[in-house]
Amino acid sequence: MERHVDQELGELNKDILKIGALTEEAIYKSVEALKNRDKEMAKNVIDNDTNIDKLELDVDEKCIDLIARYQPMAKDLRLITTGMKINSELERIADIAVDIAQRTLEIADKPLLKPLVDIPKLATVAQNMVKMAIDAFVKGDIVLAKKVLSSDSEADQLRNEIQRELVEDYMAKDSSTAPRAVQLLLIARFLERICDHTTNIAEDVIYMVQAEVVRHHPEKLKNGR
Amino acid sequence: MERHVDQELGELNKDILKIGALTEEAIYKSVEALKNRDKEMAKNVIDNDTNIDKLELDVDEKCIDLIARYQPMAKDLRLITTGMKINSELERIADIAVDIAQRTLEIADKPLLKPLVDIPKLATVAQNMVKMAIDAFVKGDIVLAKKVLSSDSEADQLRNEIQRELVEDYMAKDSSTAPRAVQLLLIARFLERICDHTTNIAEDVIYMVQAEVVRHHPEKLKNGR
Repeated sequence: MERHVDQELGELNKDILKIGALTEEAIYKSVEALKNRDKEMAKNVIDNDTNIDKLELDVDEKCIDLIARYQPMAKDLRLITTGMKINSELERIADIAVDIAQRTLEIADKPLLKPLVDIPKLATVAQNMVKMAIDAFVKGDIVLAKKVLSSDSEADQLRNEIQRELVEDYMAKDSSTAPRAVQLLLIARFLERICDHTTNIAEDVIYMVQAEVVRHHPEKLKNGR
Repeated sequence: MERHVDQELGELNKDILKIGALTEEAIYKSVEALKNRDKEMAKNVIDNDTNIDKLELDVDEKCIDLIARYQPMAKDLRLITTGMKINSELERIADIAVDIAQRTLEIADKPLLKPLVDIPKLATVAQNMVKMAIDAFVKGDIVLAKKVLSSDSEADQLRNEIQRELVEDYMAKDSSTAPRAVQLLLIARFLERICDHTTNIAEDVIYMVQAEVVRHHPEKLKNGR
């Protein structure tokens, strides 16, 4: 027989999927706006953020309410507290999409530094990591969570390469590129910060699943997080 | 008569104060290292971060354990979940101090861009905000929490001014300054991100206190967060 709490925990998963979908959309649109110098789309990302903020507060409130009503133990409690953390990570990722949209508005009227270096590539890596991290939580999938962690070095490398190129090939050679190059450099760092948030999610998922495994089979303890 | 849970909640406050003190120290040292081009001190900040990470995990674990053992309602539950959030914010602030220390190592051997612009001033603002935010939580002090929120515009202004100066007065005039100026620009943004984390803490404190007020006196509901 399904417990009533299971139904509500299922709702929590749906809420996380929903805030996750909105967050993914925000990242996608912020980078599209940058590529196409589309100010309307950038503004749209900024405007929509209040919805995500509101949703985050609702989910947080629901989690506290779930704990208060069901007084869950062990596995369920950990699922809820992990859900609260992931909810907060996703809201921050959406905030970073707003940062990207704001930088985009700053440079939308200036000539584009031709190739946007590897920013679109880094954006794809970031979006995939967000998707995988949410999936790992919903499925309680440690293997997928570890895949998120191992993707982070690719993101770091891309970010370093973008930064090197912007500083050495643009700013240091032609100082007139500095204002635009700085904005792109910030955008690259924003994207890499999104990746960092996804590794927080992945670590929380691993911790959630392993703590449970450990509780029942202490011999299975890996190296934690 | 003091409840046993009150004693443990007192312990939680002490833990938050401890991780807060270590975090403040990390920020202070990372900026001193920058000012004095002290590589040893920068490395010390980086090395000490594992202690803060460990402490954060311990506190998080304690909070979940508290919930599981006492099944607290309303006020106590909200205090614990807020404590979990603040614990996580502080750990991230400490991570940013590591970021600053790493940037410092990058430029410690290069000639200093003379005035470090307003970075030391921004660092002082950031440190004060961290102190106030932790205090606001421990005392449940909404007035202090709101003071943190109002300080954030000063931090934003300083960050913008630093960025403008680095881009326009350095990079755009003398492209050879670009590599160093970029590191300083990143450090200014790191400091401003620390301030953002303190506003998260302040918002959590306001939410914690007001939700409680509202529960008993709904007419007192201010505009929430």
